[in-house]
Amino acid sequence: MIRFDSDYMEGAHPAVMEALARYNTVQTPGYGEDEFCARAAAMIREKCEMPEAAVHFLVGGTQTNRTVIVSQLRPHQGVISADSGHIAVHETGAIENSGHKVLPLPPTDGKITGAAVEALCAAHFADASFEHMVQPGMVYISNPTEIGTVYTRAELAELHAVCRKRRLPLYIDGARLGCALVSAACDYTLAEMARLCDVFTIGGTKLGALFGEAVVFTDPALAGDFRYFIKQNGGMLAKGRLLGIQFEALMTDGLYERIARHEVELAMRLRRGLAEKGWDFLVDSPTNQQFPILPDALLAGLEKQFGFSRWQNMGGGMTAVRFCTGWAAAEEQVDALLSAIGSR
Amino acid sequence: MIRFDSDYMEGAHPAVMEALARYNTVQTPGYGEDEFCARAAAMIREKCEMPEAAVHFLVGGTQTNRTVIVSQLRPHQGVISADSGHIAVHETGAIENSGHKVLPLPPTDGKITGAAVEALCAAHFADASFEHMVQPGMVYISNPTEIGTVYTRAELAELHAVCRKRRLPLYIDGARLGCALVSAACDYTLAEMARLCDVFTIGGTKLGALFGEAVVFTDPALAGDFRYFIKQNGGMLAKGRLLGIQFEALMTDGLYERIARHEVELAMRLRRGLAEKGWDFLVDSPTNQQFPILPDALLAGLEKQFGFSRWQNMGGGMTAVRFCTGWAAAEEQVDALLSAIGSR
Amino acid sequence: MIRFDSDYMEGAHPAVMEALARYNTVQTPGYGEDEFCARAAAMIREKCEMPEAAVHFLVGGTQTNRTVIVSQLRPHQGVISADSGHIAVHETGAIENSGHKVLPLPPTDGKITGAAVEALCAAHFADASFEHMVQPGMVYISNPTEIGTVYTRAELAELHAVCRKRRLPLYIDGARLGCALVSAACDYTLAEMARLCDVFTIGGTKLGALFGEAVVFTDPALAGDFRYFIKQNGGMLAKGRLLGIQFEALMTDGLYERIARHEVELAMRLRRGLAEKGWDFLVDSPTNQQFPILPDALLAGLEKQFGFSRWQNMGGGMTAVRFCTGWAAAEEQVDALLSAIGSR
Amino acid sequence: MIRFDSDYMEGAHPAVMEALARYNTVQTPGYGEDEFCARAAAMIREKCEMPEAAVHFLVGGTQTNRTVIVSQLRPHQGVISADSGHIAVHETGAIENSGHKVLPLPPTDGKITGAAVEALCAAHFADASFEHMVQPGMVYISNPTEIGTVYTRAELAELHAVCRKRRLPLYIDGARLGCALVSAACDYTLAEMARLCDVFTIGGTKLGALFGEAVVFTDPALAGDFRYFIKQNGGMLAKGRLLGIQFEALMTDGLYERIARHEVELAMRLRRGLAEKGWDFLVDSPTNQQFPILPDALLAGLEKQFGFSRWQNMGGGMTAVRFCTGWAAAEEQVDALLSAIGSR
Repeated sequence: MIRFDSDYMEGAHPAVMEALARYNTVQTPGYGEDEFCARAAAMIREKCEMPEAAVHFLVGGTQTNRTVIVSQLRPHQGVISADSGHIAVHETGAIENSGHKVLPLPPTDGKITGAAVEALCAAHFADASFEHMVQPGMVYISNPTEIGTVYTRAELAELHAVCRKRRLPLYIDGARLGCALVSAACDYTLAEMARLCDVFTIGGTKLGALFGEAVVFTDPALAGDFRYFIKQNGGMLAKGRLLGIQFEALMTDGLYERIARHEVELAMRLRRGLAEKGWDFLVDSPTNQQFPILPDALLAGLEKQFGFSRWQNMGGGMTAVRFCTGWAAAEEQVDALLSAIGSR
Repeated sequence: MIRFDSDYMEGAHPAVMEALARYNTVQTPGYGEDEFCARAAAMIREKCEMPEAAVHFLVGGTQTNRTVIVSQLRPHQGVISADSGHIAVHETGAIENSGHKVLPLPPTDGKITGAAVEALCAAHFADASFEHMVQPGMVYISNPTEIGTVYTRAELAELHAVCRKRRLPLYIDGARLGCALVSAACDYTLAEMARLCDVFTIGGTKLGALFGEAVVFTDPALAGDFRYFIKQNGGMLAKGRLLGIQFEALMTDGLYERIARHEVELAMRLRRGLAEKGWDFLVDSPTNQQFPILPDALLAGLEKQFGFSRWQNMGGGMTAVRFCTGWAAAEEQVDALLSAIGSR
Repeated sequence: MIRFDSDYMEGAHPAVMEALARYNTVQTPGYGEDEFCARAAAMIREKCEMPEAAVHFLVGGTQTNRTVIVSQLRPHQGVISADSGHIAVHETGAIENSGHKVLPLPPTDGKITGAAVEALCAAHFADASFEHMVQPGMVYISNPTEIGTVYTRAELAELHAVCRKRRLPLYIDGARLGCALVSAACDYTLAEMARLCDVFTIGGTKLGALFGEAVVFTDPALAGDFRYFIKQNGGMLAKGRLLGIQFEALMTDGLYERIARHEVELAMRLRRGLAEKGWDFLVDSPTNQQFPILPDALLAGLEKQFGFSRWQNMGGGMTAVRFCTGWAAAEEQVDALLSAIGSR
Repeated sequence: MIRFDSDYMEGAHPAVMEALARYNTVQTPGYGEDEFCARAAAMIREKCEMPEAAVHFLVGGTQTNRTVIVSQLRPHQGVISADSGHIAVHETGAIENSGHKVLPLPPTDGKITGAAVEALCAAHFADASFEHMVQPGMVYISNPTEIGTVYTRAELAELHAVCRKRRLPLYIDGARLGCALVSAACDYTLAEMARLCDVFTIGGTKLGALFGEAVVFTDPALAGDFRYFIKQNGGMLAKGRLLGIQFEALMTDGLYERIARHEVELAMRLRRGLAEKGWDFLVDSPTNQQFPILPDALLAGLEKQFGFSRWQNMGGGMTAVRFCTGWAAAEEQVDALLSAIGSR
């Protein structure tokens, strides 16, 4: 079985594993107050061209979203998100469990717009009984989105401007951020994106690390007491050094970008191959998740050889599926998949 | 600097690191539904002689305590704990953040008794306005305790009997469980202890793993829907295999016990050496944390060479400090410490 | 100004006020453990023909919904509701604040169906990663709904059957229950409705009381420890007798039904009058809320004389507004309103 | 049976009842946006000599404490309170249910000191792992305390100074505030007390109202979005006018003070009588709760004639009990009680 289920089917990139092995017996303080974390944070600040940014490291994505969001909202506030957003669908209600409503917006291609955020805010405050409704307090987007699409610079700028006006922190969940940044659809650098939001994450798990999310508060004033939040929400690793060591490795010699480029290149190889064979796609994704629409008759057999997920029943005997390419994906694997699918 | 601050100053035991490296490129499903987790769970069930036990793996201790406790309580219930319990002091109020009061009992040598639990329950239900107070809903103990002491079989049996009578799940936080089990103060096996509680953890972080806590529900009925809770509380690792691989390594050929024995032996070496030099102790700890009472005048210099924590100001120019021995502690390090402290 | 804003624009029905005055200096125990509450609960059980039902009294609607719902759900569960449901829109996220997601269903005429609930449950448990999503744990409906419509017996029976099958408590928010029961659209009695759900409320505030909601658990097993929940959620009135006195008055000599009938009759007078004048309605409501669609040009003037709320902009210079008739509404007031609106 | 159980055994003072009756059919907007609430708030601001104070009305005490406290704390913060404080003992963990730890201080005569608050804060921030512990975020005191004692001006001033220094809002729960202000132990006016805290309540329930608590934010900046909090926590009464009407009545012609004076005078009559008969007291209370220590042998009989509560078993066959005098208490009732108790 070759697994394209997701980008967390293997361990870590060899360079990450090697760093973990190399420093295994070095003694450090616990809980992320070690030199590795300090160095990794400095490297991230430099890459963002933001010497003042506050950088923290957590273990997983749901944990990170919960911790960041709960640190920014007052109890009567909710977080605006695409109704397809990860926090709205796939985190077992962790945000609601923390006391906050996710205020859903219908997305287009997985993305929401500044105009829609502004309309939601305007409608809220125009209502005579606004105190009877949850106040918008923050905006969450994922980049790339849950279906692989990428925000453009203009889209981010519009969202950012509305958020500034409405005093809503704009949070970008970058679980697969590298894949967005290296994609053909991206017209900005990491440093430029950092200026168009208030807090974002650089996901490690899906880009070559064993685990780990770096949280970057571009406005350090929003990071007040954040270590209390990490601890309270169960994200403070005793051997926090593991996060520092991994991110230091990823930030060294462009490894993070190289892994991202590898993942996206293989996804593009798959996309081109499928398109040539005549298959349509649910969405035009420029990153490492691809959503071709395949016949149900084909899928049962395919599932015996390949791991992937059924995403959406399209009717007429067709289903959109998801293939995802991780750091360890190989050209031969993609070609085997293409060959197994065949032409339309 | 030689660090005795805690037992998480290094990475993982070489055998654990080796297992992680060996399986690095094997593909598995995510979120703990892999063969490694399945095998590690089976090994733990076997060691507990409990074929029906439900075993889950989480990343960290605070996260695990929060997840287990919140899965057992209704909103009007609290968890009984020593007021020195980890959940009562050092988890940034994660239990309260989850909506539940920690009902504190004054401990003796870090331990609480079945009699005290029974008295608290009796007092609650005897009060005419008991509905105005938090209902006891669970009992939390740590073994070894936060000051290294170990519950005896009789003490656990008494707690267990009261908990049965009052229908309170008894939860043992075993962050350093191995050290309790191999200590001279322990008069039971893992399998025997498992029969004297409803849920307990086998801590990996402080006994040779990079991270990881195994949760064992000896009564599988208490584990209903537990995977939802893991996800909601941010403990479901995408590459959950990492927990399985590590616990499989720890459970193989008695590695977990060997590491525990090493930690405790070095602590005993330290204890004997300090006692011979005439120093007193805050508590008589048979495990890998030692709490000698040393002169403040000595500590400032000692802190330049050794990592440790000041635990309690004893007055009269004396302070109880904590030294902790981890999997990587070496005899030479202990001897260097003894030599630096000198005689009373 | 004549107010049709809502049905809580005045104090209480004279009979309720008189009862409060009559018993003002009688001494009773506090917190609802008085003879008035006991008698009122008995009268409600009798009216429901359910000698075993558990009856409790709370102060307000949001508080009651929050308390009932949180008493039934485990943390990973959410409550299914029409997306127009009061808990989903107009309670400032009190359910989310309690830790639970409201799982929205698109309603038809304000109502949801058993089939839609079954489909949601089936989809949840069919998903391979269901643990990553909130588990449906309860169903909330309001009767009459937020737009005045009334569930039929067949609709309730279908919902109830699905809820039984899926083991979801079915909760009916009866903030205006009396108006549903006396409406022309209702084909069941209170006692019959009680058998088609697990818990429901009989709202007092909008039917002649100063305040107060009676909660009826038709399955008393669901009411375990409910008084703890009332206290914890701030609904336990020190002078709980006030709730008992009011509900005793409402349950005496059919007062509750008489008030409901009065409210609905005046609403029907308004509806008939508006229909005769050629106006359309947003929805065909058989209860005390009416939603005619009126020209914006008319509304500005009308708002100077009458209280009401703008409900929905219909485009084309038309707006659906809400008129609501309370216990104190008078025929002359309705006629004055009709006259001020005039013909289309 | 004559009830001295508490000060909420009857309805409301006749003047309050009369006001409710008088305005019963006046139409007003709902949810506290009516002229009665506006006038009552203005009268309170005037009495406090604080034209800028923000005044809100809620229904009950537990609800009010929960709402005020949760509006001021961030999730990692707790509220400092005497371990005998109402929020720490008798509110079914409503504060913890809202996510926050109550940080207990041992009181003297029911009171805590500024020095103790300062020491707790200093200890917190001095700890190297302070992020692992709940951060002090607010101070809660009750005045009078749960055992009837009253803070002096110097005690309040010291607390206030420490709170200013540590940036902790100081919150005074005034469930029986009137009784403190008219007591012989009080050396300040309402206006003076208002200047020594950040937010306080004026309790109505125990001083002649049917129900109701006025919340006064002396620093209006702390009241931002407070109406959202009232709604979310179930304290926003649809017929909010009821709170305004009652507080307007209480604030008119010194009724509130007159009721308080009556309650305290009757309590002093009881105290003098008991002291003359040779009985000792648990505490020297200058307000409307008295705690004589009586023989258990006497209590069983006494309980058949009088309502009161057993407060604390003193050993040696003696129990401290609580007698409480409400607005409706009469001299004959007190004298009957004294006569039934007899001499020591």
